[in-house]
Amino acid sequence: MVFDSDDMEAAGTAKVQIAMKYDDKNKQFAILVIQLSNVPALLLHQDQKVTIRVAVLPCSESTSCLFRTRPMDVSDNLMYSEIFWVSISYAALRQKTLRVDVCTVNKSHLEECLGGAQISLAEICRSGEKSTRWYNLLSYKYLQKQSLK
Amino acid sequence: MVFDSDDMEAAGTAKVQIAMKYDDKNKQFAILVIQLSNVPALLLHQDQKVTIRVAVLPCSESTSCLFRTRPMDVSDNLMYSEIFWVSISYAALRQKTLRVDVCTVNKSHLEECLGGAQISLAEICRSGEKSTRWYNLLSYKYLQKQSLK
Repeated sequence: MVFDSDDMEAAGTAKVQIAMKYDDKNKQFAILVIQLSNVPALLLHQDQKVTIRVAVLPCSESTSCLFRTRPMDVSDNLMYSEIFWVSISYAALRQKTLRVDVCTVNKSHLEECLGGAQISLAEICRSGEKSTRWYNLLSYKYLQKQSLK
Repeated sequence: MVFDSDDMEAAGTAKVQIAMKYDDKNKQFAILVIQLSNVPALLLHQDQKVTIRVAVLPCSESTSCLFRTRPMDVSDNLMYSEIFWVSISYAALRQKTLRVDVCTVNKSHLEECLGGAQISLAEICRSGEKSTRWYNLLSYKYLQKQSLK
């Protein structure tokens, strides 16, 4: 294996900041979509609107599992600060994966997702403590090119 | 939103246990694939062999980024305990996502991946401390059905 000195190339990854919290008393899971950074790394056009789609997967038929932020005009960093609540037991939540997608929406409301992150909830904290983290986004164009999608 | 009482249905998720550690002095990232649990949830046939593929993405051309465990015969739980090392700077590593895929290999060495997890390395610890966690696996058949792949 060779030492990877190519930091410059890698420094441009788009990231999303998400906070999560489980309220055990009320059996509510909160997903706070805070912000998106380094948006141009996903190769957006300047005149597009960007929405963040979050899904708690696999989706149970009895509960809402797919949410979208409002669409925002493209810029380097986008501040969403939107919160979504899911009614779910702790046991069920621990089997889920939070899928976060960054998508564009055109005037016909057609959605195209450019990249995303998956966050396993297998070890989600039960205590009600909020976990706030940055997650790297993988570009779907890149994954398709690599046949790793 | 409705209370999700369907815990039984969700309890069957396949999970992978992974440990990770970054050695800052030697600029080495270690990925330890420990085990796979609840393998039948990925709907494998009994006569298949299962390998775990890990990729540090996006892949830099100057370094190895794709690794595979040895193939093992299907059973409910599979103990791999295999370690892979990647030579990479901390700054570059923090831009990466670890993609973990559970794949079958047939006699012609053709690989079919059934499910996976993505682990963002944006907040990977620099101190050399080992982080060991379970990650839920999302079935690719499920994602395809949901058009969320």
